[in-house]
Amino acid sequence: MLVIKLGGSRGIDTEAFVADLAAVVHGGERVVFVHGGNKELDDLCARLGIPVRQVTSATGQVSRFTDAETMDAFLMAYAGRINKRLVEKLQALGVNAVGLTAMDGRIAVGRRKSAIRILEEGKPKMLHGDFAGSIETIDPTLPRLLVENGYLPVLTPPAISTDGEAINVDGDKLAMELAVALGADALLIFSNTPGLLADVNDEASLVRHIPFTGAMDEAALSMAQGRMKKKVLSAFNALKGGVGQVVFADARVAEPVQRALRGEGTVIAPTAVGAT
Amino acid sequence: MLVIKLGGSRGIDTEAFVADLAAVVHGGERVVFVHGGNKELDDLCARLGIPVRQVTSATGQVSRFTDAETMDAFLMAYAGRINKRLVEKLQALGVNAVGLTAMDGRIAVGRRKSAIRILEEGKPKMLHGDFAGSIETIDPTLPRLLVENGYLPVLTPPAISTDGEAINVDGDKLAMELAVALGADALLIFSNTPGLLADVNDEASLVRHIPFTGAMDEAALSMAQGRMKKKVLSAFNALKGGVGQVVFADARVAEPVQRALRGEGTVIAPTAVGAT
Repeated sequence: MLVIKLGGSRGIDTEAFVADLAAVVHGGERVVFVHGGNKELDDLCARLGIPVRQVTSATGQVSRFTDAETMDAFLMAYAGRINKRLVEKLQALGVNAVGLTAMDGRIAVGRRKSAIRILEEGKPKMLHGDFAGSIETIDPTLPRLLVENGYLPVLTPPAISTDGEAINVDGDKLAMELAVALGADALLIFSNTPGLLADVNDEASLVRHIPFTGAMDEAALSMAQGRMKKKVLSAFNALKGGVGQVVFADARVAEPVQRALRGEGTVIAPTAVGAT
Repeated sequence: MLVIKLGGSRGIDTEAFVADLAAVVHGGERVVFVHGGNKELDDLCARLGIPVRQVTSATGQVSRFTDAETMDAFLMAYAGRINKRLVEKLQALGVNAVGLTAMDGRIAVGRRKSAIRILEEGKPKMLHGDFAGSIETIDPTLPRLLVENGYLPVLTPPAISTDGEAINVDGDKLAMELAVALGADALLIFSNTPGLLADVNDEASLVRHIPFTGAMDEAALSMAQGRMKKKVLSAFNALKGGVGQVVFADARVAEPVQRALRGEGTVIAPTAVGAT
């Protein structure tokens, strides 16, 4: 089984990506597909006049402040337009896709952190009313049931809190936790970069292989900038959890999924690079 | 098995409705839940500056003209906010809900009618680019799989066209076709009226029972006004297809689902009024 995550950044040709995904599914791979939608949510918030608020926690993590109104827009963008247009495209390509959030079937349950300690103009402050949290448990029953019955699950945040509230959770972490819970052979994480770069401003500085030796690779982690840091952490947690390999791959190239399966991108694996 | 349809009209306390639905599910009923979202889509279109266009076909049927931009908003409202807020509420009440469109798993496949013959200021005219159609086939495999595994499917239009495009289809018709395909004991259709009224302006004129004798009841059909006409047609088609009974019921009362199961509303059934 493969878990494939497509990020929601700009510059990705979703149509081409989905066509290649469909080819891989038709080739017989069993896949759970996870997607993001960050930029599209920003665009929708702008159209609806909802302020987008990025907050920096005391530990330096940047995240979206998701109040109730932003969660409505989140559901519209992620679970509505993006998820269902992906399902539509896949159906048009003969793939029997089923679009879900991680709330459906209680796939991902987390703890809501309604108050967040932020730094505003250098000063610490508590911000309340955040519908965000971190995943605590994954129940792979529903995605597994769907895959076993010939469907392609197409999954997106939000998750559901222990109190039954929609919570914004990190999409890469969702993909990672799913890969672990499903015992996936590989987790492929696609975004608008070729993979992990030694120099973030130079796409030629791609790190092609990081051996997994059982512990976090501190050199790889310190190399990763911004959102890539979370991705690298997720990757090592996936490997620790038994996932065969993790590939950070470029969503912008031709046949992106097939390339990643051939080992293009940054491959983190216990042994030599190889497809599943 | 019950198929329960909640309309998307104004004046319905969704929170209370869902609480009663959850009580019925906890009581052991196996349910497929279908919802609409007409008014909320109107509101979203207004916020996004998308013109809402109601068109009257040459045969006098009024429908929403759903161009590509309107379909995006449709997906955001129906499949995004409404569907997922319902799933969230049900999950909070301990019901393991799974929200889907009729595109997912190819539950409802229809023929797209991209051009519609309309009357504009009394003159006939062809309008192109409509993403709308009528359901041709229902595959109950996915909703049945979910129900058999303890999930509550929460379903909404759109359906998918034979060419793989999202198409706006009538929600009542979707519920009716599902009830037939699933061999449901009852189809309960909730809206913001007590049922079929002999006098549309007098809620006391409720028709409590319409015997089903195998054919369409022309008197009932001629009594029905506006959208109720479609509902009555759907009801008789459901009964012809083998559904045990159809109830038109009021979503605005306390414990609406339990009342409808006790026979409150307009019951169309072959025999005497009775619960399932």
